[in-house]
Amino acid sequence: MKLNRKTFLKGLAIGTISLPVALRALMSTGHAQDNSDSGTISSKKYNWKMVTTWPPNFPILGEACQLYADLVNQMSGGRIEIRVYGGGELVPALEAFDAVRSGAAEIGSGASYYWAGKAPAAQFFASVPFGMNAQQLNAWIYGGGGLKLWEELYRDFGLVPMAGGNTGVQMGGWFNREINSLDDLKGLKMRIPGLGGKVLEKAGGAPVLLAGGEIYTGLERGVIDATEWLGPFHDSMMGFQDIAKYYYTPGWHEPGTALEFFLNKGQYDRLPADLKAITRSAAGHVNVWCLSMMEAKNAEALVRLREKGTDIRAFSKEMLEQLRLYTEEVISEITEKDPFAKKVYESYDAFRKKASDYADITERPFYESIQII
Amino acid sequence: MKLNRKTFLKGLAIGTISLPVALRALMSTGHAQDNSDSGTISSKKYNWKMVTTWPPNFPILGEACQLYADLVNQMSGGRIEIRVYGGGELVPALEAFDAVRSGAAEIGSGASYYWAGKAPAAQFFASVPFGMNAQQLNAWIYGGGGLKLWEELYRDFGLVPMAGGNTGVQMGGWFNREINSLDDLKGLKMRIPGLGGKVLEKAGGAPVLLAGGEIYTGLERGVIDATEWLGPFHDSMMGFQDIAKYYYTPGWHEPGTALEFFLNKGQYDRLPADLKAITRSAAGHVNVWCLSMMEAKNAEALVRLREKGTDIRAFSKEMLEQLRLYTEEVISEITEKDPFAKKVYESYDAFRKKASDYADITERPFYESIQII
Repeated sequence: MKLNRKTFLKGLAIGTISLPVALRALMSTGHAQDNSDSGTISSKKYNWKMVTTWPPNFPILGEACQLYADLVNQMSGGRIEIRVYGGGELVPALEAFDAVRSGAAEIGSGASYYWAGKAPAAQFFASVPFGMNAQQLNAWIYGGGGLKLWEELYRDFGLVPMAGGNTGVQMGGWFNREINSLDDLKGLKMRIPGLGGKVLEKAGGAPVLLAGGEIYTGLERGVIDATEWLGPFHDSMMGFQDIAKYYYTPGWHEPGTALEFFLNKGQYDRLPADLKAITRSAAGHVNVWCLSMMEAKNAEALVRLREKGTDIRAFSKEMLEQLRLYTEEVISEITEKDPFAKKVYESYDAFRKKASDYADITERPFYESIQII
Repeated sequence: MKLNRKTFLKGLAIGTISLPVALRALMSTGHAQDNSDSGTISSKKYNWKMVTTWPPNFPILGEACQLYADLVNQMSGGRIEIRVYGGGELVPALEAFDAVRSGAAEIGSGASYYWAGKAPAAQFFASVPFGMNAQQLNAWIYGGGGLKLWEELYRDFGLVPMAGGNTGVQMGGWFNREINSLDDLKGLKMRIPGLGGKVLEKAGGAPVLLAGGEIYTGLERGVIDATEWLGPFHDSMMGFQDIAKYYYTPGWHEPGTALEFFLNKGQYDRLPADLKAITRSAAGHVNVWCLSMMEAKNAEALVRLREKGTDIRAFSKEMLEQLRLYTEEVISEITEKDPFAKKVYESYDAFRKKASDYADITERPFYESIQII
C-alpha cells in the first residue's frame, strides 16, 4: 500500500462528492447475459457492479470489496465478474443502498448503520455504543439468530445482507484537550457520527458532521476540537497525530463495526445454486480476512505512533459508565418508536449479556492476565 | 443437536479406536474421474475423502468439517464431493495427517499441534500456552506472515494447510481440589496434553494421557484429579459438572486453538483454478463460522452451568505468571533443537507482542470497562 496522506485525502474527497450519474441509464446495463447451459454447470455470465460506501481503493475496507470480487470471479470460473466502484464513482457513497435496491447495481458494500434513516433496526447489525465486539457480533449473526433478523429486515428492501468484515474495537478519537471527566465533554465540538454523536449530545457535547476529506483541516483550524475515525492504521494515514494532542481509548462508540455486502434480492434469487453459495461463502471468507488485516495493520501502526511519541490516554471508567447510561437512553428512544428495532435490539442485547458473562471467564482474563508481555 | 452424554462418549470412544483399515486398498479409489471439459468450466468430478481427528459428528468441530464439505459441494456445482469421516472411521484420528500425505484421503481436518512429533513447528499454528487468542492468531495467519510459514512447513509433507476454525479461549479445567497456588499443582494428576502438559510437569504436576472417552470415568474414580477439555458447551456434554468440584478459568494452556484443513498437495495442484479458490475460500468461511458457534454455544452452556451452581474459580495471577515462565522454558527447549520451529516462533512471538500492545488500548479496555452488564 503506497498511499500518502495527500492521495489518501484526495480519494476521500472523491468518495464524498456526488457525481452526476443518471441511475436510470445504469439500470439498462450490466445484467445477466443469457448464454446456453452446458451440463450441470450453467455457463451463464453475469457482469455485476458493486457500489460501495468507501472511498476508491480505501485501505482494507475497500480492498475487502476487491477481494470479494476476485474470489467470486475465481470461484465461478469467470461467470460472475464484479466491477467495484468507490463511493462517488458511480453513485454517491450513501446512495449505494438505493442503487442496489433499484437494480442499478447488483451488489453493495457498506456498514448497516448508514441506513438507519430508512430502517432504525439496521444500525444494530453494524455497531452499538457499549455493545458487542467483532467476535461477539459474529457469534450473534451466525449462531445467535442475528442473520435471520437481518435478512428479514433487508427483505423488505429487496436486498440480501451478508456479514463481510469488521473493524475490531475502534479508538476513542483525537482530542486537543484533556478529557478527564464528563465536564470536559461539555461544549466539545467533535466529529462523531451516528449513535455515538447522539450520546455525546446528551453529555453536553456538540457532534459535528464532517465528511472524511474535511476532518483534517477542520481539526487543524479549530472548527472541531476532536474527531474519531477508525484505529491507528487509518488514523495515522489521515495525519491526525500531527495536529492533535491526545489519542484516547477505547472507542466506546464503535466496539467492533460490522461491514456488510448487500445483494439485489431479485438478482440473487435468480442465480443458480452454485453461484448463490459462492456469493455467500466469499462474504464469510472476507469477513475473517478483513478483521485480521485490521488487527495486523493497526498493531503495526501503533508501534510507529508510539515511536513518534503519540500521547495515548484512557477515558475514565466513571465517564464511560455515564456515557453507557446515556447510550441506554438513546437506544430506548429508537426502540420505543420502531417495533422491529425493538425486536432486533432485544435479541442483540440478550445475546450480548450472555456473551459478556462468558467473556468474563475467557477473553477478559486472557487479556488481563495472560497477555502480559 | 440432540446428543446426551452417553451417545457423545460412545462417539468419542469410536474416535480413538484404530479400525483395521488397509491404507493401500484405499489408495486405489476415490480420485478424480476424468470427464471431458465443456467450455471454460471443467466438468471433471472429484470424489474426496476427508479424514478428521474429531469423533464422528463431534459438535461444532465435526460439524465444521461437514459444513466445509457442503460448501465445496454447493460451490462446485457437485464437482467435488467430500465424504467426511470421524476419527477411527477410516483411519485412526491421529493418522489423518499421514493418510492425506499418502493420498489415501484427499483432505484432513485437525489441529496442527497433533503433528508436533513430526514437525515441532507445527504446534505454533494451533495453540501456544500464554500465546495468542483467536483474533490475534488469525491476524498473524492472514496478515502477519503466519500462513506463508505454515505452507512452507507443510509443503515438505506434501500438504497444503488452511486455517479452518478456532475454539476461542478455552477453560482451565475441572478440579477436585482448590488450586490457590503453584504448590497445589504439585503431584496433581491432570489430563492435559501437549505443551500445557509439559508446563504442568515443570510445576511438579503429573500430566496424564487419556483419550476423550476415558476421561469421565478416570475423574470419577480418582485415576486423575483434574482434566481440561474445551469450554462450557463441550465440557458440560461430558458431564464433568457432576463429578468435579471446581471449574477453573482461564485456559492458559490453550488461549485460542486454531483448527485446520490440510489437502494433499498433488491433488490440490491438479485442481482447476476455480476449484482451488473454492477449497480455500470455504476454509475461510468455516473459520469464522466455527469460532462464532463456539462463542454462541459456550455462552448458552455457561448460563446452564451457573444455574446448576457450578463453582467457577480463577487461577491467581501469581500462579499464571509462574506458569508463563515455565512455558518460556518449554518453548526454548523446542526452538533450540529445531531451526524451523525457531523461525516460526520468532515470527509468532514478534507478532504476539505487537498484537498484545494493540489489545491493551482496544480489546482489553473493551472487556474491562465497556462490557459491564
